[in-house]
Amino acid sequence: MKKTIGLIGGMGPMATCDLMRKLVELDPAATDQDHVRIMVDCNTNIPDRTAAILEGGADPVPAMLDSALRLQQMGADVLIMGCNTAHYFYDRLVPSLQIPFLHMIRETAEQARALGIRRAGLLSTDGTRRSGLYDRFFREADIELLTLEPADQAVVTSVIYDQVKAGRMDFDIEPLQQVVDGLAGRGAEAVILGCTELPVVFPRICFSAHVLDPTEILARAALRFAGALS
Amino acid sequence: MKKTIGLIGGMGPMATCDLMRKLVELDPAATDQDHVRIMVDCNTNIPDRTAAILEGGADPVPAMLDSALRLQQMGADVLIMGCNTAHYFYDRLVPSLQIPFLHMIRETAEQARALGIRRAGLLSTDGTRRSGLYDRFFREADIELLTLEPADQAVVTSVIYDQVKAGRMDFDIEPLQQVVDGLAGRGAEAVILGCTELPVVFPRICFSAHVLDPTEILARAALRFAGALS
Repeated sequence: MKKTIGLIGGMGPMATCDLMRKLVELDPAATDQDHVRIMVDCNTNIPDRTAAILEGGADPVPAMLDSALRLQQMGADVLIMGCNTAHYFYDRLVPSLQIPFLHMIRETAEQARALGIRRAGLLSTDGTRRSGLYDRFFREADIELLTLEPADQAVVTSVIYDQVKAGRMDFDIEPLQQVVDGLAGRGAEAVILGCTELPVVFPRICFSAHVLDPTEILARAALRFAGALS
Repeated sequence: MKKTIGLIGGMGPMATCDLMRKLVELDPAATDQDHVRIMVDCNTNIPDRTAAILEGGADPVPAMLDSALRLQQMGADVLIMGCNTAHYFYDRLVPSLQIPFLHMIRETAEQARALGIRRAGLLSTDGTRRSGLYDRFFREADIELLTLEPADQAVVTSVIYDQVKAGRMDFDIEPLQQVVDGLAGRGAEAVILGCTELPVVFPRICFSAHVLDPTEILARAALRFAGALS
């Protein structure tokens, strides 16, 4: 009997759709009935995570916990969430839960270690970078994490907010290519797409080593936990 | 305060992702927090609906009701489901529910009437056609429903099962175009995309009148109910 995956969503709604689609597409099931059961709470009452971390905005933990407990009560066997920044609050949720809660960034670091990567470059929002989440889990995995200098971070922030989130996809990719080239020049054996907007643009980037998409790594980890992937 | 939409999913899983994406994309919200809350049970324990109707397969109602009641208990204010064939079982679910349950095919018929359509052609699986669901609701809306002769139905069935469900998208579109031309020749002022696989291919078809996508009509109806669209 396969297990049921519970997805704490709404951070944001479109990224939730994307993670759900990955759970369905990466499931090797041949029929509807072979697929893993997935329960989703696309909870748009969760306050902005970056604002809470950087600007003292409303605490998102009560609303996140509300979703986690509803999914647990509904029958989920394991919880996941696709928002990088939200993982800043992970440690405050776990003590209230009776079911496992997979940690996307820990899963990403473990995948990087399994691939033999020793140095990885992080592309993310400023909030994720400054939260120190990737630093912590990559340090635990004994992998050096390369983060961006302010000018390069500004390029990535602009791609995420001014282009992808605004629905503009035909922008000049060259500045982002130069940021990635810079990481490669510093010895990055992998690039982490540490924001759910980045996988959308990365097919336009040339990078000859590993590309780590944390939401895809999380989807595969959840499907393994559920018994759909070995 | 906007209402929460509950989606009975898993019929099939990819169509569930598509309906969820429509709920997010058609919501005019500008921020994560402005979006409607959506709860989804992608319940892959629901037996095949067409097999139940045409071949005496396992009754899907207990599993569908299980999802409906879980979503109701979790906090959904209204229920929807995107599977056309599943609506064959709608009347057996409603008496057990305490919250409204929008009917996709009734919503489609009402939308057709609002558009002033008097004659509409149905493209669907054989199971949906033979269930008589569209006949019933379009008759109630005083709209003549044109269904396909067996040879034309076989073309549509092949597009759905042999092409789209098999992931083949570059097939010869001409036979389907001829089916649609036939409906236009019989006076159809609208074509109903009465299977969740059809909106994927319809952009390749030339048809100069109304195209009714029931899942999109349902998504808009649910967003209106929730208070996100007027």
